[in-house]
This record gives sequence, C-alpha cells and structure tokens, in this order.
Amino acid sequence: MYSVDRTICAISSPAGTGAIAIVRLSGEKAIELSSNILQFPEKFLKSKSGQLVFNRILDENNEMLDEIMIVKFKSPHSYTGENMTEIYCHGSNFIQNEIVNLLLRQGVCIAKPGEFTKRAFLNSKMDLSQSEAVADIISSNSSEFHRLAINQMKGKVSSEINLLRDKMIELTALMELELDFGEEDVEFADRNNILELMLQLKNRVKVLIDSFRYGNAIKTGVPVVIAGEPNTGKSTLLNVLLKEERAIVSSSPGTTRDTIEEELIIDGIKFRLIDTAGIRKAKNKIENEGVKRSFDSIKKAQLILLVIDAKISDIHVVRDMELFQTKLTDNQYLIPVFNKIDLLKPDKKINIPESLNPIFISAKNNENIDELCNRMTDYVKSLQSGSNDVIITSARHLESLMSTNDALKRAEVALKDGLSGDFVSQDIREAMYFLGEITGQISNEEVLGAIFEKFCIGK
Amino acid sequence: MYSVDRTICAISSPAGTGAIAIVRLSGEKAIELSSNILQFPEKFLKSKSGQLVFNRILDENNEMLDEIMIVKFKSPHSYTGENMTEIYCHGSNFIQNEIVNLLLRQGVCIAKPGEFTKRAFLNSKMDLSQSEAVADIISSNSSEFHRLAINQMKGKVSSEINLLRDKMIELTALMELELDFGEEDVEFADRNNILELMLQLKNRVKVLIDSFRYGNAIKTGVPVVIAGEPNTGKSTLLNVLLKEERAIVSSSPGTTRDTIEEELIIDGIKFRLIDTAGIRKAKNKIENEGVKRSFDSIKKAQLILLVIDAKISDIHVVRDMELFQTKLTDNQYLIPVFNKIDLLKPDKKINIPESLNPIFISAKNNENIDELCNRMTDYVKSLQSGSNDVIITSARHLESLMSTNDALKRAEVALKDGLSGDFVSQDIREAMYFLGEITGQISNEEVLGAIFEKFCIGK
Repeated sequence: MYSVDRTICAISSPAGTGAIAIVRLSGEKAIELSSNILQFPEKFLKSKSGQLVFNRILDENNEMLDEIMIVKFKSPHSYTGENMTEIYCHGSNFIQNEIVNLLLRQGVCIAKPGEFTKRAFLNSKMDLSQSEAVADIISSNSSEFHRLAINQMKGKVSSEINLLRDKMIELTALMELELDFGEEDVEFADRNNILELMLQLKNRVKVLIDSFRYGNAIKTGVPVVIAGEPNTGKSTLLNVLLKEERAIVSSSPGTTRDTIEEELIIDGIKFRLIDTAGIRKAKNKIENEGVKRSFDSIKKAQLILLVIDAKISDIHVVRDMELFQTKLTDNQYLIPVFNKIDLLKPDKKINIPESLNPIFISAKNNENIDELCNRMTDYVKSLQSGSNDVIITSARHLESLMSTNDALKRAEVALKDGLSGDFVSQDIREAMYFLGEITGQISNEEVLGAIFEKFCIGK
Repeated sequence: MYSVDRTICAISSPAGTGAIAIVRLSGEKAIELSSNILQFPEKFLKSKSGQLVFNRILDENNEMLDEIMIVKFKSPHSYTGENMTEIYCHGSNFIQNEIVNLLLRQGVCIAKPGEFTKRAFLNSKMDLSQSEAVADIISSNSSEFHRLAINQMKGKVSSEINLLRDKMIELTALMELELDFGEEDVEFADRNNILELMLQLKNRVKVLIDSFRYGNAIKTGVPVVIAGEPNTGKSTLLNVLLKEERAIVSSSPGTTRDTIEEELIIDGIKFRLIDTAGIRKAKNKIENEGVKRSFDSIKKAQLILLVIDAKISDIHVVRDMELFQTKLTDNQYLIPVFNKIDLLKPDKKINIPESLNPIFISAKNNENIDELCNRMTDYVKSLQSGSNDVIITSARHLESLMSTNDALKRAEVALKDGLSGDFVSQDIREAMYFLGEITGQISNEEVLGAIFEKFCIGK
C-alpha cells in the first residue's frame, strides 16, 4: 500500500517569487539523492542532522545554479519520520523549478498535496485529527479559527476522543465480565451502573457534536445578510462595516467588491457578507420589492442585520419585525438595526419592545458601529456550548461522532431492553470504530486520499 | 549614516500562503529580541549557530501561535554579517503577519526592500556589483539571464573591474614616476609605453561596453514584432510560437494574452512579443494598412519577423523587403518568413535572393518552426562580442563604463598632446573613480537607495 522507496520532493514555500524559497525532500534516499546535485556533497553528507550548511547546486552542465543553505534531518527525527533534506535557495521561479527538475532526474518524485504530512501520519508522528489541523492552520485567516486549529494540532480533540475510547473499552470489559459469569449471575445494579456510564459517554459525545455549530461557524465564517427596505442605509452600513477599524477585510482572491461575498474578520471571527453586490447595485436601481426581497436573501444567512429607518419606525415596523422573527430557523439570529439616529428629532421616542433587542446606530456618522460589531461577535460566541474548549470544526469528525452517537443509542436501547451483553458489546464496539475514524486508528486509502488531497503542495 | 542598533525583520519567503514561510531578522539584537517571543527562549539561546531547533511562538496572551523551527547565525558568519535569526513557520498569512507583529512589539523594525543585502554590502560581505546580482538572480526567469546574474554574483564582473583598476593604478604610478624625475629626463619611449598600456585599457573597457548590447537583450528580453500584410498568417505564427515545445511562455503577472506583450523564452533566451494584441484583434477587423502599419510597429522592435505569403511572393515582395531592410537601424534584425509553404504547388519556385536570408515555414502545419526558433536565438547569440564571458547587464554599470571611457579618452588626448603628467594622472584618477562606482568603492546613500529599493522585501 505505501512504498517507502519513493523519495518525494516539493516546493514548500508559497508559490511565486521571493527572497528565499524552500525545496524539501522526504524518503529513505532523500539525503543521498539531494547530495548528488551539490558541488560539495561530502560537506553535506558529513554535516550534523539539523545543521544548516552552505553549498552550491550544480546543473546538468556542472554550472553553478545557485548558492544555497541545506540541512538534513535523519529518520526518525524529522517531520515525516523519514530521512529529509531541506534546501533554502534564492526565490526565483527559475531556480525553484530547476532544482525540482534536477531532483527529478535523480529519480525523486513530485510530492502529492499533503504527502509529507500523510507520511508523518503513517509513521505515527501525529494522528489523523492532528494531521488535518495542519491544513487548517495553513488555510486559516482568522485568529479564532487559528486558535481552534492549533488546539487540534496540539491534540486536544485527539485526547478527548481517546478518553472516550478508553471509557468504551472499560464498558465492553464490564459487558464481557457479565458474559463470563452468565447473565443470571449479574447483579441488577451492575446493568444500571453500565447504563449510567453509557449515558455519561453519550453526553460527552453530544457536547462534541454540539460544538460543531460554533466550530463550523468559525471555520467557514458566519454568513451575514444586511436586509431591509430601500433607503434605510444598507449600503452605507456595509461600507462602514468594511472600514471598521477592528475589522480585517479579507483580500483572499475572488472576494472582490464586485463578487457576491465579502469576508470581514471582526475580533478574530470571520463573517461572510453575502449578497453584497445586490446591495451595492440596488442603489442605482428601483428597489420595489422591499421586505419580500429580504425574505429571499435571509434564507442563506445565519445572522441577519435588519436595517430599519429610525425616523419612520412605527407600529408597522414592529409588526414586520415580529413577522420576520417567526420566519427564522433555530440556526438564525436577527439583529434589528435602527439606522439614521442622527436624523431623529431629540424629542422623538422610538417605541420598540425590549424583547426584539434593537440596536440604534448612525451608519453615516459611524455611531454605535462598535456596539453592533460587539453584538455580532457576541452572537457567535454564544454558539459555544459550555466552557468546553474541545471544538469540532471538521464535517468529517461530525459525521463520525453522529455515527458514534447512533451506535451508543442502539447500545442503550439494547441494555434497557435487557438484551444479551453480546448485542450491547457489539454496539459499543461499533461506536469505538467510528471514534477511531477521527484519530485514524481506523482509516483506509480512500479516506486518507480525500483528506490529504485538500492540503497544499509541499506540506 | 548607518545605525547598527536597528534590528530589522521581514517575511523572506514569497508572498502568500504555503506550507512553510520564513521570517528573518538581522541586527545586533536579532537573536535576543527573537528569543522574547519563544516558549523556550533558553533552548534557542543555547543552540549552536546554524543549528535548526524546534520551538514555539507565544502570542501576547501566552497562547501558542505556532510550532516552528528556528536558527540563529552569529555575527560575522551570516548573510548580512550581523547577528541573524531565521524562523520557519507554518505558511498561513495569519501566522506570518502575527509573527511580524509580535517582533514589532519587541522593537524590531520592518526591513526595507533589499535591506538585508544592503547590510551585507555595508559589512563587506559582497561588493555592490555582486549585491545587484542578487536582485537579478531573484527576478530572472530565463536560464541565460540567470547564468549572467550568477556569474556576476560570483564576482566575474567585479574581478574584471578590479583588474582594470589595478592597471590604472599602475599607469598613475608610471605617470608619477615621470613627474618625480621631471619631464625632460623621461625617455620618449616611456610615453609610448604608457600610451600603449592606456589603449589596451580602453579596449577592455570597450569590450565591456559592447557586451551590454547582449547583456541588455538577455536581461530585458529581445523585443520582437511579427509584421506583414494581412492574411499572411501572423496570428497563426504567433500561436505556434507560443505553443512551441522548446518555448516557455511566461506566466508573470500582467502578461496575459489580452495585454500588449507576451513573453516567450526559447532555449533560455527571453523574447518579448510586442503588439500581439494588435495581431489577435486584427483578425476580426479590416486590415488595410499593410506594410505601412508594419513600418510603425517595427520601430519598437529589435527583431522583426516579416511574414510573407509564399504563394503570392513575387518581385514586388522582394522589392518591399529590400525597402524594409533599408529602414532598419543598426540595432535591428529582420527575418523574412515565407509562410504557407503547405499551399505551394510542388513545382512552384520561390525566387528570393540569398542575401535576404529567407526562411520557409508552414505555421499551420508546424513546419520549420524549430528552424525559425534557431534563427531567433542565433541572432541573439550573435550579439555577444568575442569570447569574453564578462557581460554587463546593468544600465548603471554601462553608464559608469561610458564615463570611464570618456576619462580615458581625455587622458589619451592629454598624453598625445604632450601635456604635463599631472593632467594625465588626473584623468586616469577620474576613470578609476567611475570604475569604483560599479563595485561600490565609490558610493553614496542616494545611489545605494536607488539600487536597493528595486529589491524585493526580505532580501
């Protein structure tokens, strides 16, 4: 299944031109094969593991291609656990590609995406959940997602999963004890004990499943819609949010002002402003659909900023808003944003029920925008269930946890129905199997392929 | 003028996201300040120079930001000659920026473009011509420019310049000898000797100046125009060249198919196909300007591929081509390309004078395109004067060499006119001054600023 003979190489620094680029190799022959393209191979071969040394790369005509720094890491003390070489060269595209070409001629192969980390996993340098965290760490652009990914890489998710597995092993041992002695000899209290243990277990799995609501919001970003009637200042609010000092507007490719989404990171939490092009374009068009239009776009959102003109807010507005509230799903949250308070007469009273949790702003004068941002981030933080800081961010993990949960439910029913310990044990073993998928005790080439193909090249 | 107190840092890997990124620092306090953001500062401080060690970076809240490899290089054994630290982190934009932010809070400053190499120059790790080569190495995307830049970094240009300076010092010594003894005591043969030495010197400077024709073509790419009457197959030829197996079409940003230029690298030599948008667009327009239009665009070109329909080539075409030839400057070269030979009747004879050096192709059938490519690269190689492989690629160097040449001319005239040795010496000293600008014996903040601001960040 896995050939250790294959020595792989890849450019591990970001694509493009820069001061320094990194080419790295992994495999049993990584050190030997990389020494073949050097002007001073002996110097490199004799260097200590982890010691950066100066060298020169020679091309096919024995002309100097580049002056480099090079380091080797001897198995098993490397990222992949195999022999590794890292080359630090001048960062022109030409040099980077030429070095890879020279290595290919030595019989080295181009690494597939994530192949270095995959080897690290296969050589037990980290488990599967930790491996997945590496890809998240590299792709994360918000501090909160970064924090969750770092926790996962450090093994917080894995520890919790392993602890649950240990408890399940305990449970099956108890069930087998019951089997050994025959059902009739077992005290009734023991089954109750086992049931109690199982419910505790189910609860912990439930907490993990629930944490995905927060984890997923953090990982993929919270979809936000700015809704409301025409001329309530939606466009001004959008611009003000994108300019907010505390916010980082993402410059990730494809998210330009003209496309449908814009990313906004407020205090480390990512929001995806959807349908913003609609808002911008609407300014120059006749908007005659009002609330109806808003109803359509909010389907895609998790957080809805319903913008209302504070000047004309009256009993109808309150009724509309209450109607709005009833249309929301459990996974949606509405913030009624009363805009244009700068235009209010000082004596004008706004009569909005506290239950609607309104906020009063002036987008034009940048008034209370900070508070609005707080409301947005507070909402996301409220998704965090309990104080547990083991957060599931991976849909794959969620799926395994759901299956674990189902198996535990079956075990519970079997136990309550007084079925034979065999059946109960079987269900618990299934639950363990699904947990094992998360950390990779249980894995297959297909699953690994799906996981590592999402990695970037060189990691 | 130059504060060694300032510790600088920059992201030295290419911009963007990747598996691994590099942050580096230079300055007296580089090692100390970088240790302040580590979880295990002692481990790093005690590590040996050049030894990569594992560590963790902690953020302001003492939370782990990333697991990294870190290495220090102690002055003077580093790229800049100062104390240096290099950090190898996970390559997310978030981590890269956070590390820089953490360093800024330690009092480290952001490095200006080229500041690491500037420090290397100021600390005499390399001369100015070698420093400039570093920027060329990073920006080069053709093998021939890469080769010239590597030679320059290795000091080939510097050695030649230093040799010329040594000869000038010899000359001034001879002139001063003459002064010491008084003019009347000096043998007539001595002045002839000196003149002979000076002419040798002038010749070598001339060879360097002439090499710029080749060096500049290699550095900036040879501007090529595909000219010719409508319907001669210019567009097909363009496409065929861009698809040529031996050619690498540059993917550098901005050179898309829609912009005016496309870069083409054939056998390591860069060609800039100019006015290609015109060719592509012309296909859907009525082209009625023919040769006149071609005359306009060839002004910008160094190499002109004049495409002629081989089917209709007659005496008029020959006359047109001869007219074309007379309009060319010394720095331009024309290749008459007779296209569509696939449509020729087997017995059709093409009567073209050998002196015009025609080439017969079929762009449609990819016939003889390889030969056309050879003609193009042969032309560029012919620009190389003599066997000398010291090639000037920098306009700055050319300027200094021209000034050197002028000063030597004045010295020659003074010598021939029998002027006092004082005057001759003065001119030779001026020539030495201009040569010194190339290697940086003579430099000032303004010149250095202009040179290093063209570097990329982190180098």
